[in-house]
Amino acid sequence: MTASPDIENLITRLARLPGLGPRSARRAALALLQAPQTRLQPLSEALETVARTVQTCPECGNLDSQAPCALCRAPDRTQDLICVVETVGDLWALERSGAYRGHYQVLGGTLSPLAGTGPEHLNLAGLRARLARGEVREVILALGATVEGATTAHWLQSYLLDSHPDVRVSQLGQGLPMGGALEVLDDGTLMAALAARRELQG
Amino acid sequence: MTASPDIENLITRLARLPGLGPRSARRAALALLQAPQTRLQPLSEALETVARTVQTCPECGNLDSQAPCALCRAPDRTQDLICVVETVGDLWALERSGAYRGHYQVLGGTLSPLAGTGPEHLNLAGLRARLARGEVREVILALGATVEGATTAHWLQSYLLDSHPDVRVSQLGQGLPMGGALEVLDDGTLMAALAARRELQG
Repeated sequence: MTASPDIENLITRLARLPGLGPRSARRAALALLQAPQTRLQPLSEALETVARTVQTCPECGNLDSQAPCALCRAPDRTQDLICVVETVGDLWALERSGAYRGHYQVLGGTLSPLAGTGPEHLNLAGLRARLARGEVREVILALGATVEGATTAHWLQSYLLDSHPDVRVSQLGQGLPMGGALEVLDDGTLMAALAARRELQG
Repeated sequence: MTASPDIENLITRLARLPGLGPRSARRAALALLQAPQTRLQPLSEALETVARTVQTCPECGNLDSQAPCALCRAPDRTQDLICVVETVGDLWALERSGAYRGHYQVLGGTLSPLAGTGPEHLNLAGLRARLARGEVREVILALGATVEGATTAHWLQSYLLDSHPDVRVSQLGQGLPMGGALEVLDDGTLMAALAARRELQG
């Protein structure tokens, strides 16, 4: 214990954030304490506000200060397109890209027989409701290129084909990331890129 | 804008912490939002508490929930020894080492003619008061091995020798850090280590 219990508690809490270890949490705490008006107070208020307002969207599983979330309410988004992602972080990444203008379904996880995570643990309520209402033309599976992501995509594909054969199911293309040099890519990506090769028009 | 304004505000505030950039702040915000009970609420409360309680010790410049701070109040610390450091972070580092059991004076900065920082900008009140009360036997200058640190140490040394010739003034030893391999050390450290060489008893 080198600082007061209150400060040590703050350091402990900061150190639990991803990207911060004990040393950087200490530096961050010090930076906060040395700027009470410009750093400490605004961060404290920002946390208090999100703790009070932010909730999981009952439609899609996104996090927002309103329910349904701003994306589910947006009138200008394509209504009949649902993109299925694992986490809110994945949703944010797609939104940042600006490449997608439909709705989402955040599963909140992946299928993992080893970890005992079955379909009943996935958040599918909104997707099921939208499918039941006949609103959906296409479901895009944007799951991670991992064993769990592939398992989950496979199960969802079967489920959707069985229950809604009229709905198109697609998944994200796999291959070289932008700017990716071949020599630093892992074997899995290279294999996927080879398998997904496109014939060029002569 | 990919998330709600409240969440974006939290991300902005987190991104201003040292050690966190925009990407890691986003990850941290998500980790907080996904664990409201175990991460968000405790961090929010920890910040609220330190914002309410932590203050600068009027004696030594340390940060603590009580004033004077726990170190200044501690009856078992050597009363006549003052260690002068630049920042509270430096004080914490010395306390972590467990190698020092006296009092401190946190300057809150260093002398820098270029930046217009003169002696009047240094927090010396507590040191001056303790010197005036005749409590001090030795002042240890534990300033950084930088140009500013050396400038500040030099000024403090002159000031103390002039005003309190009976008080011993010392500074931290300079040389090889523990575990430091010579080939990776910078020239300045090697020069200091050579200058500070000790004769070994035969």
